[in-house]
Amino acid sequence: MEKIRIVLAGPRGKMGTEALKMIESTPHFELAAAVDSRNGGKRIKDIVGLPSFEALIYEDLHVCLDETVADVLIDLTKPEIGKKHLEIALERNVRPVIGTTGFSDEDLRRLSDLAADRQTGAIIAPNFAIGAILMMKFSQMAAKYLPHVEIIEKHHDQKLDAPSGTALKTAQLITEVRESVKQGHPEETEDLPGARGAELDGMRIHSVRLPGLVAHQEVIFGGEGQTLTIKHDSMNRASFMPGVKLAVERVMKIDQLVYGLENIIE
Amino acid sequence: MEKIRIVLAGPRGKMGTEALKMIESTPHFELAAAVDSRNGGKRIKDIVGLPSFEALIYEDLHVCLDETVADVLIDLTKPEIGKKHLEIALERNVRPVIGTTGFSDEDLRRLSDLAADRQTGAIIAPNFAIGAILMMKFSQMAAKYLPHVEIIEKHHDQKLDAPSGTALKTAQLITEVRESVKQGHPEETEDLPGARGAELDGMRIHSVRLPGLVAHQEVIFGGEGQTLTIKHDSMNRASFMPGVKLAVERVMKIDQLVYGLENIIE
Amino acid sequence: MEKIRIVLAGPRGKMGTEALKMIESTPHFELAAAVDSRNGGKRIKDIVGLPSFEALIYEDLHVCLDETVADVLIDLTKPEIGKKHLEIALERNVRPVIGTTGFSDEDLRRLSDLAADRQTGAIIAPNFAIGAILMMKFSQMAAKYLPHVEIIEKHHDQKLDAPSGTALKTAQLITEVRESVKQGHPEETEDLPGARGAELDGMRIHSVRLPGLVAHQEVIFGGEGQTLTIKHDSMNRASFMPGVKLAVERVMKIDQLVYGLENIIE
Amino acid sequence: MEKIRIVLAGPRGKMGTEALKMIESTPHFELAAAVDSRNGGKRIKDIVGLPSFEALIYEDLHVCLDETVADVLIDLTKPEIGKKHLEIALERNVRPVIGTTGFSDEDLRRLSDLAADRQTGAIIAPNFAIGAILMMKFSQMAAKYLPHVEIIEKHHDQKLDAPSGTALKTAQLITEVRESVKQGHPEETEDLPGARGAELDGMRIHSVRLPGLVAHQEVIFGGEGQTLTIKHDSMNRASFMPGVKLAVERVMKIDQLVYGLENIIE
Repeated sequence: MEKIRIVLAGPRGKMGTEALKMIESTPHFELAAAVDSRNGGKRIKDIVGLPSFEALIYEDLHVCLDETVADVLIDLTKPEIGKKHLEIALERNVRPVIGTTGFSDEDLRRLSDLAADRQTGAIIAPNFAIGAILMMKFSQMAAKYLPHVEIIEKHHDQKLDAPSGTALKTAQLITEVRESVKQGHPEETEDLPGARGAELDGMRIHSVRLPGLVAHQEVIFGGEGQTLTIKHDSMNRASFMPGVKLAVERVMKIDQLVYGLENIIE
Repeated sequence: MEKIRIVLAGPRGKMGTEALKMIESTPHFELAAAVDSRNGGKRIKDIVGLPSFEALIYEDLHVCLDETVADVLIDLTKPEIGKKHLEIALERNVRPVIGTTGFSDEDLRRLSDLAADRQTGAIIAPNFAIGAILMMKFSQMAAKYLPHVEIIEKHHDQKLDAPSGTALKTAQLITEVRESVKQGHPEETEDLPGARGAELDGMRIHSVRLPGLVAHQEVIFGGEGQTLTIKHDSMNRASFMPGVKLAVERVMKIDQLVYGLENIIE
Repeated sequence: MEKIRIVLAGPRGKMGTEALKMIESTPHFELAAAVDSRNGGKRIKDIVGLPSFEALIYEDLHVCLDETVADVLIDLTKPEIGKKHLEIALERNVRPVIGTTGFSDEDLRRLSDLAADRQTGAIIAPNFAIGAILMMKFSQMAAKYLPHVEIIEKHHDQKLDAPSGTALKTAQLITEVRESVKQGHPEETEDLPGARGAELDGMRIHSVRLPGLVAHQEVIFGGEGQTLTIKHDSMNRASFMPGVKLAVERVMKIDQLVYGLENIIE
Repeated sequence: MEKIRIVLAGPRGKMGTEALKMIESTPHFELAAAVDSRNGGKRIKDIVGLPSFEALIYEDLHVCLDETVADVLIDLTKPEIGKKHLEIALERNVRPVIGTTGFSDEDLRRLSDLAADRQTGAIIAPNFAIGAILMMKFSQMAAKYLPHVEIIEKHHDQKLDAPSGTALKTAQLITEVRESVKQGHPEETEDLPGARGAELDGMRIHSVRLPGLVAHQEVIFGGEGQTLTIKHDSMNRASFMPGVKLAVERVMKIDQLVYGLENIIE
């Protein structure tokens, strides 16, 4: 397989550091250069403990792409920078994989048009947690066939909000595909208020908060005589790298802009 | 081991039928006679499909015990009958194992005194589900060391009440042993009401109702860097028999009345 | 929605009885007639306890379809009969949903051609357990992104074979999509033989057998910092009905033969 | 409650650092002094980032106890030092809680005699993971009533040995209390070798190894119509502190030596 030549913007952050390790351990990936707000002119091996990386650091993406042959730009910086980098890359037919948030609908329309004009693939992924994305996608698929569903999400007891954003998004995705269902017994009662959890379009969501938990969710589908459960347990940020890797591989094969990793899962 | 000679009252009910099978498959148990509101004079093998049971059926416990050498009475009848049978058995120094409910505090005092006078063991067990009882006992023990706890109980969606009686009893047992704990983050909020479940002394209880579920409960204890989970899944009434068997074996070794199977677990 | 008129072959078997209940509780389904090896001339309400079913029983499918306007034939009989019924239905442009097994590759080719000629949809589904089929399909999808996987299947202790057929089929489906992975530590050892389970293309399969279990499987995918688990718990035959219902709805929209429910899941 | 005055030996190690945090957050604990192989004369607040700790550091336990009023010594050092410190503390009627290993049977006999002579409590705990200890204790208790059991332990795929030490110890504890049981169907077969796991006295043990896992074990008990599951999930070393805290509280109430935290659980 021909190597995919990658420019990485944001190599010093937590995600960036993990991305360097991922590139190093992927035989068909190659780090062509990096973009960093400082350290211009140094080499990656000088600023992180990865001696094999000779790649040069640039402080400006324009200059970087003038001097570097690259297939893909991975951007793990900040919203405003990510947006700007996406455009610069597209204009030079380098395929962007952008991990930042903050794109408006107007932004997405404009950038989709740009990608289509340039016939160049681009992926924006505000969430690279492929396990969580698979859980959400499978939940949406399952709800078509087993529409009775409850969600239990469990987090450490320092979390302030309930339900979690992932639980709400999962429920939202399910409402898009199932007919509305009145779940539970029509005459069920709560002897203690809140026992049956939060309600969203007939579904119930339960939020557990305990020390010792990290970030967990299970989506339980019930049908006559059976249950189907889809569960994701997440420990740390390294869990994002399979998603970054997937996006790099997929962006090489498309010629338009895709928003959300869930839309490149097959 | 010497065989334990058993009189069974209520051999035709669901529990009674299971009890006959249990006695048959326990080498050191022997069915000495049965008490049934009808079928007096017949043999057990005539009324149920268990050909090995020659035991005679009596319609009155007094007559039965006049004519039968017995160690233990298992009573799986109805509240009023169970109470009467318990007294009759104690007066004849036959050890009663009573599976009926409906004993008042006054009843229990009086019957405890009677058992003590007769120096005869007796067990009243309104719940023979040993798995559920172990779950409750272990939960109470664990709460002393890991006081942060949430309960998730799951039942079929025909159940009307929430939380389940077992969940409430488990929570109650935990409050008896742990110091009061304010669980969760002091500033946590619910974006959808009910997400954090029902509250009982700081604990949270969550009730899931779905088709395909039967009767399930998990009690989750969280501590720094770890969780401990105690889970019980119940399918049907056969799950009561290990509890009946245990009660028969234990009642032979005690000389007083014990109320509740949880008090004979070691 | 216009009602789908159904002929049911095999109304007295376990699956057939469940199918009658499912048809009764589905507003857009209507029982047009039934085919049974006996009871010809009676009505369904005469042979099962479902008073609302006026539908006539025929002993021969030819006669039945001569006299009945039908959209779909559900066949829950036996291999030889199911195969014959499939052909008869196709020839009359009634769409068959066949739940029997025993089709050879040669059979499938011939019947596919027939369905294509008649431009009539047909579904053969040797397994209607939609929950299990979803579990297998999701497992296959997940393995592309998270290739490290182990399977734990749990059954009652009367099961003779290990691993279960479903576990083997799940593993087989996974091998079709993932690159071969050497799982576990290269130098791992078993201090007790068998601890690491059975091996299939690098995957590990573990079979648990205990009283109190029914039929359960979980497929666990591990990636850096996360796990994704897909779990199916099955209690009884009623769990097949959502699959039958789905097949009836889908067969109305296709014009060829489909083998296997997994191929109509979207 | 009167405060328990604690001397901590080994304040700079991973366990020691966690212990300092635990003492700080426990209102009825007070750090009286520390023993460290260096830093003598400094204060704890000078060597760790915990500004509230004024406690002095000594390089020798004799001197420390000459100059400090203490109730309990927590020792989290090394085997040879822990053993010596235990004796010194006992001789001065300071109650030792020792977290090191390497005590021979002869050591334990001698030190038990010493503790009895001095009528001073002492606890040696080679494993402070209270969650794991509770899991083992509950498993042993449950096996008396539900003797059919299988163990599934799950660890990251860098673990070399299988089954885990905890799984083996759990199985060992179960064999001590249950009558030997021939589990599974007498005629069960493995179509793939290893599917039924490792065998220990009729029990089956299954070892799962996947990236993304940390350290997990579930013990599943099966009885007619029910299962009981005891599960422990461990993330990191902080999980040892509830065990240390418990030992400190308990050592104040005993007047002999106890070996193993499992022997102070009630």
